[in-house]
Amino acid sequence: MVPATVCAGSGIDRRVEAIVDEMPVGLVYAGDLFAVMLATPTDLEDFAIGFSLSEGIAGTPDELAITGVDELTDGVRIRMELPVERLAALLRRKRNLMGGSGCGRCGTDSFAETLRPLDPVRSTASIAPEAIRRAMAALPAGQSLNRQTGAVHAAGFARPDGDLVAVREDVGRHNALDKLIGALARAGIDPADGFVVVSSRCSFEMVHKTAAAGIPLIAAISAPTSLCVGFAATVGVGVVAFVREGRFTVYAVPSRVATPA
Amino acid sequence: MVPATVCAGSGIDRRVEAIVDEMPVGLVYAGDLFAVMLATPTDLEDFAIGFSLSEGIAGTPDELAITGVDELTDGVRIRMELPVERLAALLRRKRNLMGGSGCGRCGTDSFAETLRPLDPVRSTASIAPEAIRRAMAALPAGQSLNRQTGAVHAAGFARPDGDLVAVREDVGRHNALDKLIGALARAGIDPADGFVVVSSRCSFEMVHKTAAAGIPLIAAISAPTSLCVGFAATVGVGVVAFVREGRFTVYAVPSRVATPA
Repeated sequence: MVPATVCAGSGIDRRVEAIVDEMPVGLVYAGDLFAVMLATPTDLEDFAIGFSLSEGIAGTPDELAITGVDELTDGVRIRMELPVERLAALLRRKRNLMGGSGCGRCGTDSFAETLRPLDPVRSTASIAPEAIRRAMAALPAGQSLNRQTGAVHAAGFARPDGDLVAVREDVGRHNALDKLIGALARAGIDPADGFVVVSSRCSFEMVHKTAAAGIPLIAAISAPTSLCVGFAATVGVGVVAFVREGRFTVYAVPSRVATPA
Repeated sequence: MVPATVCAGSGIDRRVEAIVDEMPVGLVYAGDLFAVMLATPTDLEDFAIGFSLSEGIAGTPDELAITGVDELTDGVRIRMELPVERLAALLRRKRNLMGGSGCGRCGTDSFAETLRPLDPVRSTASIAPEAIRRAMAALPAGQSLNRQTGAVHAAGFARPDGDLVAVREDVGRHNALDKLIGALARAGIDPADGFVVVSSRCSFEMVHKTAAAGIPLIAAISAPTSLCVGFAATVGVGVVAFVREGRFTVYAVPSRVATPA
């Protein structure tokens, strides 16, 4: 809660308002601080697991063990353990990354790493338009933080029929998606059996994380970017955007949407 | 332009649509690739100058010389020269950063660098509420990319009376702000003599860049975050948010807004 002054016309109104929390969240593997992300400090275990999976630091949830979550004076630190061969790979990558609240692809110093290729998503999913509309319509009900503060993105996972089974929120859209990916992994939900809906735009990094998690389709309220659409085609991720007012637009891998014949 | 399939009700409509460009933009100082950001490839000289200033790589525009902009197969590279003492400092920082389209504070591996302190903004500016409303109302007219594609953030600079003198756009809100800061520097406009309006939320990194540029106030259409408000107070940057429908809310350094007595 922070003091705020509302100016409307020539009048002012002093009050106390809820604003969304954003703080440095450090991800530590085997004692080494690998990344500091600016994130909303909720669902931190989901975040740690999801980030580790979507960034390719771990291959499966079984490889990760969270050994502690420490509240520091200037942020939060999540400590994890990894198998020794994964740690060696991490060291080789040596991506010391610090992410802004909108960021998920930090720390590299090369063009090649920026567009790091991924295996295509293995899934034959083709989602009905009505399922996409239904899942997006259900998203706001899961956005409790956003209702309180109005600055929070959400990512939700829906079954192929549009049933929304998990929603996670964060000030950063990539963090919300990482939290969701972690939540699926921890709940043992198969990411190939459904799709993601997000309250934001669809950028390259969003598709990259979706593909890394093995999710066959991402549907966004807002617009896609050119890089996102081009990359999505190479990894078999359907991209649906502008899901609003009963309609939407398919930008990549049209076979992921069961459009009427 | 990309092929797109619009699904509305049970009908579909195939068309070709404009979507916003996003590509890797590499920032090279004295031959060394320092950072790769995902950005919209417009106003690249402004971006290079603004990024260098807001990230503290150069202290003044005079210290920077753009020596080339190269189109590569997988992105764009901007080559710059710096004075030798700045290069030495850059090497010491050794922040090899790669930024997502929403990111501006990448590449560090420490909590301290994340919240890198800055000198307070030196300005006695106190902006009239009407000037803030006027500048924000004028912003859409400068958002030509957004009108075409609908996924583009904008940052504008207004004189104390609300006259909007520059607008820059990018798929990433931090990139839009960097482009604006660069545009001001290149035009010789004093950043202390006015304020910034942005079409996005106001996060920590946005205030950090605003403060680094010496701009005394930032006004956002959408919400602020807790970290942004706390940091703004320490650097003397006024934070105004939810500027819409004739009203707005002041969250930090209320003296930056000339509220009615």
